This record gives sequence, structure tokens and C-alpha cells, in this order.
Amino acid sequence: MRLSQTAQDTLCANALRFLAIDAVEAAQSGHPGMPMGMAEIAVALWTRHLKHNPTDPTWPDRDRFILSNGHGSMLHYALLHLSGYDLPLDELKRFRQLHSKTPGHPEYGLTPGIETTTGPLGQGLANAVGMALAEKLLAAEFNRPGHRIVDHHTWVFLGDGCLMEGISHEAASFAGVQRLSKLVALWDDNRISIDGDVAGWFGDDTPARFRAYGWNVIEHVDGHDTDAVDHAIRDARRNARDDTGPTLICCRTTIGRGSPARAGTASVHGAPLGKDEIAATRAALGWDHPPFDIPEEIRNSFDARKTGAARQSAWQAQFDAYAREWPELAAEFTRRVTKRLPVGFRVLADAILRGVHNEAATLASRKASQHAIGRLARALPELLGGSADLTHSNLTDWPGCGAVRADQAGRHINWGVREFGMAAALNGIALHGGYLTFGATFLVFSDYARNAMRMSALMRQRVVYVMTHDSIGLGEDGPTHQPVEHLPSLRQIPNLDVWRPCDAVETQAAWNASVMRADGPSVIACSRQNLPHQARDAERLGDIARGGYVLAEADDGQPAMVLIATGSEVALAMEARARLQADGIATRVVSMPCTAAFDRQAASWRDAVLPPDVPRVAIEAAQPDSWWKYLAGAPRAAVIGIDRFGESAPAGELATLFGMTPERIVDTARRLR
Amino acid sequence: MRLSQTAQDTLCANALRFLAIDAVEAAQSGHPGMPMGMAEIAVALWTRHLKHNPTDPTWPDRDRFILSNGHGSMLHYALLHLSGYDLPLDELKRFRQLHSKTPGHPEYGLTPGIETTTGPLGQGLANAVGMALAEKLLAAEFNRPGHRIVDHHTWVFLGDGCLMEGISHEAASFAGVQRLSKLVALWDDNRISIDGDVAGWFGDDTPARFRAYGWNVIEHVDGHDTDAVDHAIRDARRNARDDTGPTLICCRTTIGRGSPARAGTASVHGAPLGKDEIAATRAALGWDHPPFDIPEEIRNSFDARKTGAARQSAWQAQFDAYAREWPELAAEFTRRVTKRLPVGFRVLADAILRGVHNEAATLASRKASQHAIGRLARALPELLGGSADLTHSNLTDWPGCGAVRADQAGRHINWGVREFGMAAALNGIALHGGYLTFGATFLVFSDYARNAMRMSALMRQRVVYVMTHDSIGLGEDGPTHQPVEHLPSLRQIPNLDVWRPCDAVETQAAWNASVMRADGPSVIACSRQNLPHQARDAERLGDIARGGYVLAEADDGQPAMVLIATGSEVALAMEARARLQADGIATRVVSMPCTAAFDRQAASWRDAVLPPDVPRVAIEAAQPDSWWKYLAGAPRAAVIGIDRFGESAPAGELATLFGMTPERIVDTARRLR
Repeated sequence: MRLSQTAQDTLCANALRFLAIDAVEAAQSGHPGMPMGMAEIAVALWTRHLKHNPTDPTWPDRDRFILSNGHGSMLHYALLHLSGYDLPLDELKRFRQLHSKTPGHPEYGLTPGIETTTGPLGQGLANAVGMALAEKLLAAEFNRPGHRIVDHHTWVFLGDGCLMEGISHEAASFAGVQRLSKLVALWDDNRISIDGDVAGWFGDDTPARFRAYGWNVIEHVDGHDTDAVDHAIRDARRNARDDTGPTLICCRTTIGRGSPARAGTASVHGAPLGKDEIAATRAALGWDHPPFDIPEEIRNSFDARKTGAARQSAWQAQFDAYAREWPELAAEFTRRVTKRLPVGFRVLADAILRGVHNEAATLASRKASQHAIGRLARALPELLGGSADLTHSNLTDWPGCGAVRADQAGRHINWGVREFGMAAALNGIALHGGYLTFGATFLVFSDYARNAMRMSALMRQRVVYVMTHDSIGLGEDGPTHQPVEHLPSLRQIPNLDVWRPCDAVETQAAWNASVMRADGPSVIACSRQNLPHQARDAERLGDIARGGYVLAEADDGQPAMVLIATGSEVALAMEARARLQADGIATRVVSMPCTAAFDRQAASWRDAVLPPDVPRVAIEAAQPDSWWKYLAGAPRAAVIGIDRFGESAPAGELATLFGMTPERIVDTARRLR
Repeated sequence: MRLSQTAQDTLCANALRFLAIDAVEAAQSGHPGMPMGMAEIAVALWTRHLKHNPTDPTWPDRDRFILSNGHGSMLHYALLHLSGYDLPLDELKRFRQLHSKTPGHPEYGLTPGIETTTGPLGQGLANAVGMALAEKLLAAEFNRPGHRIVDHHTWVFLGDGCLMEGISHEAASFAGVQRLSKLVALWDDNRISIDGDVAGWFGDDTPARFRAYGWNVIEHVDGHDTDAVDHAIRDARRNARDDTGPTLICCRTTIGRGSPARAGTASVHGAPLGKDEIAATRAALGWDHPPFDIPEEIRNSFDARKTGAARQSAWQAQFDAYAREWPELAAEFTRRVTKRLPVGFRVLADAILRGVHNEAATLASRKASQHAIGRLARALPELLGGSADLTHSNLTDWPGCGAVRADQAGRHINWGVREFGMAAALNGIALHGGYLTFGATFLVFSDYARNAMRMSALMRQRVVYVMTHDSIGLGEDGPTHQPVEHLPSLRQIPNLDVWRPCDAVETQAAWNASVMRADGPSVIACSRQNLPHQARDAERLGDIARGGYVLAEADDGQPAMVLIATGSEVALAMEARARLQADGIATRVVSMPCTAAFDRQAASWRDAVLPPDVPRVAIEAAQPDSWWKYLAGAPRAAVIGIDRFGESAPAGELATLFGMTPERIVDTARRLR
């Protein structure tokens, strides 16, 4: 007997439900409610629309699928497994267990087919915005008449939690003004969040809100009617073809649908159903298969390997034709989407660095950063940067960059005043491939973007954050704009390289290192004020990349004192060194632009730079506590830092007030002798 | 000759313009564009509506005025000065100078009449939401038939930047669902942000967006027509009376209005106009007064001292009548709005702490926190707490608390999934007075709220943050939900006390300390998992408040090893101590629940707790670097921490994987001998 399509769809949805129910039960931990509520929506998208090839999750022109409500991870794992990805049933049985491929929330790089790590609410939507932007720009750059080698959609599942988060506003507003028509979000409108019925705390007219952003909104879709969702998705694809802006599909659903006792309540959100309720749910849905036992005909309905391979083959044929007509473009496209730097880039980067050293310029490091961007942009057509409405303060644009607009594919993005949305979208751009991306704001406002920067680090994405106005040195704008704790606290994010260059040379070196770092994000913290050039020989020029090095040796080569400094304080340390040397205290200055890079060096390097038997003073215009790590082992040591909030005044007066002076360094060093 | 009202309004607006222009020019730094653009709006609100008394900025029933676009600070200073606040002209002349009362951005506590510190965009709106909520709840609690002792408005100026920020969504959505009808926002719709014409990056239909939140929206107001703004404000006040929700007034303006060359462009936003353009502006506006010279009749128009004193007197008469009819309520009201704790609270808090110690319970510290909240709530009717949609995970509610809803004045707030908005609104509640407030989320999501927590610290507000699920100990939810860097990086925010209690007793002590801390915010980081009770004598019970103390002395009183731990790691240290003692290594365990409190102790205390000549091991399931501060001076030392992201697995397996075990502590200690 052949089932009707509707009956078959119901079976498919129930298969997703029970894989989630049974995996959560096996783990005794997890979130069954969302998979049970979004099952039909998933069936509609994954069996009728999603363009992907489970046997090649790296196919550049695949659709991107993002689960912004990442706690529903079992839905995604069930879909990947049934569609034919390399995610065997055994992995589903080990949901949330140590070193399984099915962690509590979806993790990029761990599970084939997971496009981004989600869980922190709202960020998946912003990742998707970045992906859709990358797709649009890449299409504009590489497609040619008769050749649409870039042409895919970005699909997002999201819930009420994502929509309450502020980042949903930043992301959706930006997607609207940029008219990202191939972005389609499917909202799980179940009216339940963890605290219960959302009526008490979430009263938005969400469709009206999204229309206000310039989105198409498809309302009143029955999220448990696969055909209804299918029709809405068709309408969304038409919007994409007609380029009328992104689309939100509002799917009315019941959380935990199928559970007789818990459907429609918060109790089904984040806890196992338990044996009895699972039995009741099996009975209610007429599902008599044992846990993890999915009938063959259901597997066949999901299996996308054949159609996926055929679609990828067809694309490959298109691409081959493109490559014949546009061989250089095709080679460049392949390089770009595989995230490889141009051949010979390292040599070029070294040459650029030598050139900057020869210029010996005194510049604010934010200005030096702008110069570095301009130099790199000539060699890296993939450079795609911008600022959160501080372009002329952060200095992120460069000659000929061109602005990215709804109807214009440039290379510089005005993100608007949207730091968090920008950072999460940068993750999406980096994950998508095709661009090497950076974004900028004031260092103090890294706070606004912080969790997305953490996600860059967790996902090991090459994203560069230009964070200017890096200390009280910004002056009059006062304590709300003066970072104090930000440098050390960003350094504490694992896998994030934080650079604070002392001059134009170190700024270029920081940019070179950040661009060549394939496995993680970097912050480049830049000054508002001018920083004098520091002279170095060729060897020391190369040492910058080690993160900490001897910038100036004691005159006799036998230091009796080591001064460690970063950024604008290096010049102070150099001045203090001159006075100490004059006093007969042999003094070494160590510049430490990146503690993370320094930590990766061999112990022999670290001990050579910071000899264990010599007193040390660390100087940085920031919260001082973390520096004790680099003072441990010295016979005597001190930190000169700032452990209170700043003040509003001209920068020079603040330097005196906060003791960021050569005099204080000299006095401190003398006391330690 | 008497001027027409319209002519007089124009003069008043121009007075504000030139005070801003000339102060920025004198400082050679600042933002003239916004004051020039919002001058008429300010005249309408401040000379016709704002209820305040410049001679008593602490009058509890004054209107609250918030400049969310805080870079326009000179507008506010000009208004305060002209209205008669204690802000002499000399202070305006010292705009942005060291230790003036006119810093670059408005700072609470520094300048009379400044209700909150602004500058970080969007947060002023969220502060205002907190103030309006406090007003509404206080009115519900204290007003009585015939007595409206709490009855004031909250007014907010905001710009495009505030509206682009995600927090504006969280704040406005929450204000809508809570129907905060006395909140009125005036939008400076000048279509310019720092990067230029916003059309390229900000295309929202903002009126439609706010209607979607349930706000009243008054559109198409000419922001340079004082009467038009006045009429809109009257309409907004009617909405307040009719309780139809908050109101957004959309004022179409020209940034830098009056400057012939720069009006309507980004160039007037954040830089002095310069001598020539100032002369041209003076000519264009017909303003021939020298800098800082404001004619008497204009001063008289602004001077609110007489009317303000009369209004406050009338209120005082009302309050006196109230006090006669409801003497206990009146006394309680006065105590509450002056932010004093009940008489005898300290004695009570100590008794509670002893009681908790006697219970000797093994609990998760999040559960212990809930118990502490319940105990304190009985003594503190001002306790007003909530959670960002994690009430039953953070455990923030208590028996009889009641939910705060649009039509119900309870004491527990479901903030929705809005961590940043919550934190900034908590600042508003604390600033308003009348409530002692706390909010909660997972510790990892302190990232989302971080800059508002910084603002709590900068403004020295008593706000308590309950941050649960404080380490990899949360288990299966995985690295997106497991804090690693958060404890140390929150500790680096100046003036923020971070508590991480090791058992129910320290949890109560942390709560007591946080509630009694009148000059700053506190974080209480709590475990998901159970923590065993630690026994202490009465003296040690009192020592908890010192932030670091000897929990268990070496058996012979002569420690050969000191183990320092916090939170869940204290129990591990205690177990390690038992084994080390058995091995003949006399071991002291120091519990360090709050490093900031410990840092405030005398050196003698600190040295007594951490004797300089004894090796030390610090143990904390978090990024380890900052602990070196507490190891400096020891002959040998080590930190056991976690310097990479977590994993998804059951908590016990993670403890082994990440080496959070007594065995590792024992091994490390042995190696240091």
C-alpha cells in the first residue's frame, strides 16, 4: 500500500519527534519541545526545498540552514542523520555524551552539516544575515551572464527567544535595509518560553515589526500542516526571485506537539518527557516503533543523497562551463570559497612589513591600521570590512573600497550602530566563505559584541575585530568611552588573539598575523592618539609575530630590570629606560603586543625574553591584575595599570592623573632594585 | 517691548544652541549637532511640561529626564544651568575639563539633575523603562484613594543610534507589554548618524515598529516648532492619563540646525564648528551675544526654581496629608525612596546567616540563593527581582512574590529573553529609588548584559546580579552555555563585587553583603549542582564578608601549603587537604568568595590569610590567569584552572576531563613542596 503524501509527511514528522524524544530520554537531558513543535516545518523544508548534498557538506552553492533556536539541536541531528549525512544512529544515541558528534547545542566543525554553532539566542539569525550577505556579494562578484554559480538560499529556524533578544532587531533591520531577499526565516510561533505563556512578557506584533524592517511577512501558517508550510516556502522563494527583501514565515505551532500531558506548556521545553509520558505520546501519535528504530520508507523520504548528488553534479557542470569561459574567475572563486590566501601572500606580507618599518612613521595606530587595511586590500580581493557607524573614527575604509548597499556590491559595510549584530554577522560571513572579514567599533563597546566575539573564538573563525580608542588616551569622551577592563578581559576568551600594537610597524604585523591566522579570530586594539615609531633590526621585526620580544636590550646586554609594555605604554617604557640607563640601571624593554601569541612560544623563548632572575615592571593603561602571570618567577615585580574608571579631560592631563608617565615607571623600577 | 511667545521660544532655543556651540569650541571637543537639532524640543519640554525643582534634585516625585543620546550632553548642561540647578556658568565653560561638573557624557552623581549616566547608546531608553516601571509599581504600592504621592513622568530624548541598537528593541518591547504609560520618548529624527545619511543602513519604519510594541506613536512632528512639540507632549500626557501605553513622539529635525555650512550633515555631529562657522551661525540666527552671555529675559524663561519650589511645596502638602492618614506608609515611603535599609537590618542579616549555618544544608548555590532571597524578602519589602526567562533555572522567585504584569503589581519580574535590557532597566530601577532590585541569567550570558553591568559599577548603583550555572559543572548544555572566562573578566570591572559562594552559608553571606553594599553592584555566581556544607566557627562565619578567609587551618596551625579556591572548587580543596594532611603536608584551605572584598582588607589581614612564605595553589574552574595576583610573593605557586572552552557531557565526566579533581590538586601541591 502506498500512503498518501499527507500520511507520509505525518510519519516523517513523527520520526523526527521520536528521535528527539528518545535521544533526550537516553541522555536524561535536553530539549524535546522544539523538535516536536517544528517537526512538520522541518519536513516541508528538508524534503521539498533544501538544496544540499549530504555526501558533500562543503559544496559551495548549498543552501545554508541555521537553527537559531539551537536548544532544539536534536531536530537538526535527526534531519542530518535521516538525510544521509555522516552522522550514524549511534551518534544520536550518544546525544550530549562526551566526545559524541551530537553535543547539547549544535557545534560548527564537530558535526557534518552544522553550519554554525548556536544556543546563545538570536545570534543564529545574525549569522544567517552574514551568510545571506556573503551569498549576495559573492554572486554579484562572480556570476556572469548565463552563469549563476552562486545562487542559494539561507534558511533560519527561530523561536520567541530569538525574537525577544535585541540582536534580532539589529540583524533583521540590517537584512531589510540591505534587501537580503534570499534570507528566509521560519518562526516557531508557539507562544511559550521557558517562564511559560509569553503573553506576560512578549506582546509584540511580530509580523508588523518585521514589515517595518522591510521584510515580506507570510502570516497565519499552520506549522503542523506540511503543505501549508510548503506553500509559504514557495512564496518566500518567489520573493527571493523577485528580490523584494527577506521573508519571515510565521508558523503557528504547539510546543511539544504529541505529548498528551505536556504539549503547549513550558514543561516540555527543556526536560526529558519521562517513560510514562513517552508511552502516552507513542500511543497518541500511533507510533509503535522502538526507540531509534525508523522504518525504511521514512528513511527513504528523507534520504537526500541521490537528489543532492544530482544537484551538485548539475552545478558542477555549470561551474565547469563557467571555468571554460572565465578560467581566472573560476580559479579565484575556488580559492576564495576554500578560504586559502593567494599564493605568495606570506612573502608579500613580510615585504609590506619591512616597507612600513622603513617609513618609520609616527601615527595613531588606528591610522596605521587604516594604512594596513589599504595595503592588504590590494593583495586580498576577499577583504570585506566595515564599522558600526564609526567609519571615520575607527578608520576602516580604504581607497576604492566602495560601500555595500542594497543595490551595490562594494567591500566596505556601514553596519549602523549595531555592534552585536555586526559581530555575529561577521561570523556568518566567515563561515559562509568567499570573504575575509573584519568589523570595527570602539574598544569599550566590545562589551556590546562580546558574546559574538566569543562565538568567533569557539568556532575558530578568521574574523578580525578592529577596536580603536583603546584607553584613557581617548580623552574627553570620558569613562563611558574609556576602556579599562577590556584588554585583559578579552584576553581571557580562549582562542582569541588580542593585539595591542605600539606603533605603525606592530600594527602592520598584527594585521598580517590576523589575516594569516586560519584558525581563530583576532582583535587589533588601536590608539586614538599618535604613537612614535620604534626602530628595530630585521630580526626583531620578525619577532613581533611571537607576541612578545625584546624591543630594546639593556645597553650592556645584561639587564638589571625588565620593563614590559603594550601599545601606547611602550613609548613610555622606552623613555623610562633611557632615564634608568642614565642612572646606571641596565634596562630591557619588552614589547608584548599579543600575550596569546607569546604564550604559544616555547618556554626557551619566553624565558629568554623574560629572564627569571631579573626584576620586572609591567605597564599597561588597563586593569592590571592579569599581568601578574608574566611577573611570576621574577625576584621582584610590580604592575602599573589603571584599576578604576577613567575621567573626562584632555588626554595629557589624564595620563598624569592616572600615572601613565615615564616618571612613575622610573620610580617604580628604582624601588624594585 | 514684549516678544511674542514664538519669538521668545526661538531665542530660548538659540540660547541652548550657543551654549553648546561655545562650550564645545572652548573645549575644542564635543558634539554640537544634537543640541542644535533638539533645542526647540528641549524648550517645549523643559519650559512647559517638566515637573522638577532645580533647588531640590532629590524630590522623589519629580519627573525623570533621560538623555539617551548622551553625546548631546551640552544640551542637558545648558538646560540644567538655565533652569537654576547648581551648575554655574563657570562649569559650562569648563566643559570636558578635568574634574569639572560637565564631563563629555552626562555622569550620574557628578552633576545635579543628571538622573543617569549615558553615552553607550540605547541604554538610556532602557534606564528610563526601569524608572517608569519603578514609578508605576511604587504608585501601586503607596498611593491611596485621594492620595497620589507617586505620580510623575519619565521623559527620554533619543536618536537614530539608540534606535539601531538591539537594546532599544528589548526595552521598548518590554515597556509595551508592561504598558508603562507614563514613559514618553522623543525621537530626534534627523536621518543622520556618524557615517552620514542613514538611508544606507537604517531603513526601519520606526513608527510602525513602535506601534508593533504596543506604543502610542505621534508622527510627523516638526521638531523645530516648539508649539508642535508642545502639542505632541500634551497628547502623550493624555495617553498617560488614559493608560494606553508608552508614547513615542517622532520629531523631524535637522542636525546642527543654524549652521549654514554644516546643518543636516554628519560633519556637525561630533566636532567643534570652528571660529568661522560659529560666526556664520551667529549671523544666520541673529544671535549677537558673546559666548556664554545669555540675556536675562531668556534666563527668566528657563528659570524653574520658583515654579519648581511651588510644585514641590504642593506635593509636600499632599504628602503631609498622606502622612497624617497613613503614617506608617509615609514613613516606609520615605525610607524606601532614600534607599535606607530597615532599622536593625544588619543584626537580622547576621542572625539569618547563623541560622543558615546551623542548617548545614547541602544545596546547589542557586537553590541556596533562592532561599536567601526568600529570607531577605520577608525583611525587605523593597526587594524587586526577576529573571531573563530563566526563573526556574536561576531560581529567582519566592513564596508570595507575585508576578509584575501590566495590570498587576507584584515583586517578581519576568524580563523575557532580554539580558541587556534587563540589566539596564535594573539600573533605572535602582536610580529611581523605592526598590532594591536584582536580575538573573546564566553566567555565560553576562556577556549579553555586560556593558549595563559596567554602568551599574560606574554609577555605583546597588544592583544584584544572580548568575547561575557558573562553570562546566552545568554539564550537557555544552560550551555555549559553560562560562570559562566570565568570572575573572567580571572581576576586572572596577567597583563590581563578584561573589562565588562555596556553600549555602557563603551564599547567604554574599546576599547579605550585596544588599548592604550601598555604593555598588554585586554579582552572585551560583552553581547548578549541589555543593556540600562547610563547617565554620562563629568567627569564621563573620570572616566571609572579608571576601577571603581561612576556611580550614592546617592541623598543626603551621601550614606548609595553602590551597585557595572558590565556589564548587572549595569542596575539592577540602578533600585534597584531607589527603595532603594524611601525607604529612600541613595544608590550609582559603575560601575566596569575593576577591574585591578581600582586596579591600588591610594588608595585615591579607598576609595572615595568605602567608608570604608558604607555597600556594589556586583552584577555580575558570580561566586561570588572574589568580597569579594572589600567588605573587609565594615561594612556589600554581593555578589549576580551565583555559579552553568546555564540552557537552555529564558534569562528572567533564570534571575529570578538565582536571577539576582532588587528585590533581594533591599532585600539584606535592610537586610544589
